[in-house]
Amino acid sequence: MPSAAVVIIGNEILTGKFADENGPFLIQRLRQLGCTLRRLVVVDDRLDDIAEEVARCAALADWVVTTGGVGPTHDDLTFAGVAQAFQLPLVENDEVLALLREYGIPLDAANRRMAALPAGARLVRRPPSVFPVTLVRNVFVLPGVPKLVRSKFELIAPYFEGAPVYVGRVAASCPESAFAEELTSLAARFPEVSIGSYPRSGPAEPAVLLTLESRDPSALAEATAAVEALLGPDRLDPRHRG
Amino acid sequence: MPSAAVVIIGNEILTGKFADENGPFLIQRLRQLGCTLRRLVVVDDRLDDIAEEVARCAALADWVVTTGGVGPTHDDLTFAGVAQAFQLPLVENDEVLALLREYGIPLDAANRRMAALPAGARLVRRPPSVFPVTLVRNVFVLPGVPKLVRSKFELIAPYFEGAPVYVGRVAASCPESAFAEELTSLAARFPEVSIGSYPRSGPAEPAVLLTLESRDPSALAEATAAVEALLGPDRLDPRHRG
Repeated sequence: MPSAAVVIIGNEILTGKFADENGPFLIQRLRQLGCTLRRLVVVDDRLDDIAEEVARCAALADWVVTTGGVGPTHDDLTFAGVAQAFQLPLVENDEVLALLREYGIPLDAANRRMAALPAGARLVRRPPSVFPVTLVRNVFVLPGVPKLVRSKFELIAPYFEGAPVYVGRVAASCPESAFAEELTSLAARFPEVSIGSYPRSGPAEPAVLLTLESRDPSALAEATAAVEALLGPDRLDPRHRG
Repeated sequence: MPSAAVVIIGNEILTGKFADENGPFLIQRLRQLGCTLRRLVVVDDRLDDIAEEVARCAALADWVVTTGGVGPTHDDLTFAGVAQAFQLPLVENDEVLALLREYGIPLDAANRRMAALPAGARLVRRPPSVFPVTLVRNVFVLPGVPKLVRSKFELIAPYFEGAPVYVGRVAASCPESAFAEELTSLAARFPEVSIGSYPRSGPAEPAVLLTLESRDPSALAEATAAVEALLGPDRLDPRHRG
């Protein structure tokens, strides 16, 4: 099962100038693909912050996705950060230079800066898309513009495919403390099922929503039945089953 | 100027079961208060992941805010993680026990678990709110339920107050590469102004939105005028000024 980590590079997110759309998109899309997301980090546009977080995520997960900080301006530091993370030099990439020439983009200093990639970077292409995604070791570097993130991610989606995760939900009408101890014992009996317990506060919500997740559908069904039995008919919220 | 880091503890966010509401709220609220947010991390409900990230953030920023993972169930590991981050033992807190007694909450094992806080934890109270916020060293531990995060954060908001940040915006009708080099030189001339350049793709948006930020309003005005002069009337997008 592939695992992933996401690094959102963006002072503009941390300062609230733009709401982050890329994190929520990647969370949903990775989930659909059956990929386990281990962490998601929003870092400032500082070289050391980017480099340290990319190195951490690259060691933790099979694949890392970065968004933002790719472009010709002074605040675009992602390639330099990824290079520093792996202690690689930045070198002009011939494939990128050829693409810029092909599309008639002038090879001035600002655009050449976009062609300077960490040594050993690969360009991942998938027809019919023309523009590639840059891969450095296990780090895919995506831009920050949400529309481009959505289209470019589909080029690399196959890397993140894993077995589907099955989900069960049980709603309780009592507070967590009424079943916490029994639930802890039950969770220990189903190590292949991840059980979460979430107090809710909305007017149309149950007191607690329990979620069960597993790649093994029969273990999931057994654990879900056990949680329902643990609560019993009096503490199950009938509005939220299954 | 206070700085902050936010740690969202929640497998339910990383797996897309719930959209994170606490991160966006804290980003906006910290900004309003004049606090610099250095990083925001969503981690899994794993003891080591929580402990390592809390330790990292506590060393990086003046104040850390955690959300989630506080409660009586097996997936509530935040206090254990914060304790591990600072190598502190978990000890039953007399003030919390007294509060549980006062509100008639039964002192069973699950609820006693909620009273086990890292040694030296302080309870921050502010009338008329009854329930306190737990502070361990420089880490404020908030629950995960968004409604509670909003109300509890107001108890501790004064810790995050700093001088206001002033923002200027300039919209360009040309691509970034047309001004990237000049902008880099300009940014170097205004070290006290943070300048961001963001390509946009929406139908009602400019080609590039430039933002300028500073705690010094006269430096901001000077830098904003310099960016407008750099672009010149032909490359300024008149729909988005000021």
